[in-house]
Amino acid sequence: MDSIAELRSRLRAFAQERDWGRFHSPKNLAMALSGEAGELIAELQWLDDASVADGLEQGALKERLADEAADVLLYLVQFTEAAGIDLVDAAHAKIDRNESRYPVHLAHGTATKQTELHRPHQD
Amino acid sequence: MDSIAELRSRLRAFAQERDWGRFHSPKNLAMALSGEAGELIAELQWLDDASVADGLEQGALKERLADEAADVLLYLVQFTEAAGIDLVDAAHAKIDRNESRYPVHLAHGTATKQTELHRPHQD
Amino acid sequence: MDSIAELRSRLRAFAQERDWGRFHSPKNLAMALSGEAGELIAELQWLDDASVADGLEQGALKERLADEAADVLLYLVQFTEAAGIDLVDAAHAKIDRNESRYPVHLAHGTATKQTELHRPHQD
Amino acid sequence: MDSIAELRSRLRAFAQERDWGRFHSPKNLAMALSGEAGELIAELQWLDDASVADGLEQGALKERLADEAADVLLYLVQFTEAAGIDLVDAAHAKIDRNESRYPVHLAHGTATKQTELHRPHQD
Repeated sequence: MDSIAELRSRLRAFAQERDWGRFHSPKNLAMALSGEAGELIAELQWLDDASVADGLEQGALKERLADEAADVLLYLVQFTEAAGIDLVDAAHAKIDRNESRYPVHLAHGTATKQTELHRPHQD
Repeated sequence: MDSIAELRSRLRAFAQERDWGRFHSPKNLAMALSGEAGELIAELQWLDDASVADGLEQGALKERLADEAADVLLYLVQFTEAAGIDLVDAAHAKIDRNESRYPVHLAHGTATKQTELHRPHQD
Repeated sequence: MDSIAELRSRLRAFAQERDWGRFHSPKNLAMALSGEAGELIAELQWLDDASVADGLEQGALKERLADEAADVLLYLVQFTEAAGIDLVDAAHAKIDRNESRYPVHLAHGTATKQTELHRPHQD
Repeated sequence: MDSIAELRSRLRAFAQERDWGRFHSPKNLAMALSGEAGELIAELQWLDDASVADGLEQGALKERLADEAADVLLYLVQFTEAAGIDLVDAAHAKIDRNESRYPVHLAHGTATKQTELHRPHQD
């Protein structure tokens, strides 16, 4: 069974057994996902790249990050299910689109270019 | 091929072709993930549950949410790869842990209970 | 003394006494701010509006939200100081701009309009 | 007039004139705040500290960051007002608490210590 499909199936059973489905509106699940993303970056906020590398090698940081990453995925799977979105299809469609938006011959190169290409909208 | 493994493989090629790997530290990717989670909730912030349901039926909202959910997954896959974390293993480990933490006979029930169980730490 | 100026002054002393200034790059402080915003929404993710109102009246929720809101402000003040931004000026400039962008005669009205006006960019 | 009080007063008038008060539940405003925090970190996600410093000097990055920081403050002020929280009091109370939690003689020093002290909770 596909990994995402298997997680979806376990999560559906988990919520049903606890009667938690009624809390799982798209809006609430998006909030939960965002909260977990916040916990993920909170783990890294004071560390420079070298300290992150050290922490990952020693294992304790890796375990905490794995835990937070898992939380993000679990809420993402539940969010997309609640919204009737096929997560894996959407992800492939997005990579397809990015391949058109950032052609290799233009995107290859400098941080400036990368930044420019990825620059979020104003306002 | 498993869905997560396939996305990982496409994303790896995408970043390599553009020489973007050097921007993809765990810290930067966690920030990108968190930024995308922010865009996801921004889509829902002024809508009540009924408006979300309407919007999902009409399709335009669904497309925007699918796009943002895809972005979250793409950065999550890249983040966990950069950190040497097996995302699917971590997700199953987390569900296992949640099954112990929230036993069905205790967790079944009220919003209060759910809130209490899920209540984030103080400070 | 103005409230923001006073907080800035206390926070500067706090960080100096602990030699924490070197962790306080704009990037790190932005991450910290975002992490705290995540904790704030985590407090509300499973509650409907009526439960939020109840929780605020009983006081315990209010205290937790006050605590998280304070954290957001403290990091925001430190972030803008590290980036050389005048936070209060920026806030007034933004309200000025919003007054032009959302003229009263157009913005008054329906959720749809509000949503449309506030709709985040695509991608 | 105090800076926060003045912003609160302008924002109250702004929302009233547009009849937007009914969208401004604590939950919705917390989501909006979190979305803006996401936009803030999105501006910084691919930049190292030197590039941030360069960008701030050239002005364009500074303007974008000022804009996003302003958005965070505007929603924070509105959120705390909707929740009946005194934002400035809460901020001072939090600094007081942090002064007890991180005594100068213990907190002074290494990144490890800082990380340990600031380490977010597990789960």
